[in-house]
Amino acid sequence: MTTAVVDNGVNVEALLGAREMFSDTPEMARFQWRSTVSWVNGTHSEAEVEGFSGFNEEQQHSKRFSFDIDHPLQFAAEDKGITPTEYVLVALGGCLTAGIAAVAQQRGIQLRSVKATVSGDMDLQGILGVDPDVRNGYSGVRVDYQVDADASPAEIEALVAQSQKRSAVYDILTNPTAVTVTVS
Amino acid sequence: MTTAVVDNGVNVEALLGAREMFSDTPEMARFQWRSTVSWVNGTHSEAEVEGFSGFNEEQQHSKRFSFDIDHPLQFAAEDKGITPTEYVLVALGGCLTAGIAAVAQQRGIQLRSVKATVSGDMDLQGILGVDPDVRNGYSGVRVDYQVDADASPAEIEALVAQSQKRSAVYDILTNPTAVTVTVS
Repeated sequence: MTTAVVDNGVNVEALLGAREMFSDTPEMARFQWRSTVSWVNGTHSEAEVEGFSGFNEEQQHSKRFSFDIDHPLQFAAEDKGITPTEYVLVALGGCLTAGIAAVAQQRGIQLRSVKATVSGDMDLQGILGVDPDVRNGYSGVRVDYQVDADASPAEIEALVAQSQKRSAVYDILTNPTAVTVTVS
Repeated sequence: MTTAVVDNGVNVEALLGAREMFSDTPEMARFQWRSTVSWVNGTHSEAEVEGFSGFNEEQQHSKRFSFDIDHPLQFAAEDKGITPTEYVLVALGGCLTAGIAAVAQQRGIQLRSVKATVSGDMDLQGILGVDPDVRNGYSGVRVDYQVDADASPAEIEALVAQSQKRSAVYDILTNPTAVTVTVS
């Protein structure tokens, strides 16, 4: 019997090592992620992401990442970047997809392709203050996966379900998070 | 008396026009934002954002925007992009900052600079499944603004508070949203 080596590019040993370290030394697991957002003009701002903290130390990404955030031309803005709420969809799709790769690796499932179509419905009567009964955010978000992998449909379903269970962004969207806004 | 013309680059007339249109024809206000996320390798995936729907029609951004999502080197990943949860901070800072510019314009307050420091605390014992009592997402998020504007500290506080009140992403974080994940 020949066993193909499963390689989804995820270093599961490193993740299991981190898990063991966090279990032994829980303060190492306390991370802080950050972004600095500077207004440019109109609805256009620029976000930078570089440092974070974790493993009891200050950490750096390998480079400084920059992102433009704006509103589209259809709102008389300049469309220098995607809207804030589209960034939320990027975050959700990226989080669930990374989880699928990691869980597949751990379960010995070789992935060939994974594609998510992420969509969120929003009634703009909320943010524009037309109807106080309409919320500002998404009324609902859907993620539909197409997965090509060496696994049965049931195994693929279970893979996606496990990723959902351990996803930070899925949790952030589906459960309330305290957000404190201050002016200094 | 000389009145300086306030120009924060926000077309408030267009926004008020949209508000009136949505008030008259609520179905025009029903938007759908989208992203397509494709797995690349490991925890690295690529998100594309181009089309959305609203004003009763299919709409397009002026170009296709692409984003890399990954995990940092510290997790034995390749750091090809920021993490999903950092994208959430980008979204939040961008949303509140655009709101500040729009509200300032409407209130006749000239902004000179607006900078937000956004941070989120996350105990990775959650996503790694070490402790089932630890949530996967942020335990809390903070946004701290430094605003230089032709306004009193109280007016600036009120500006930031109003932006928070009408922010889509602030709502998405602080209140639960239904997320449906399917495999097709």
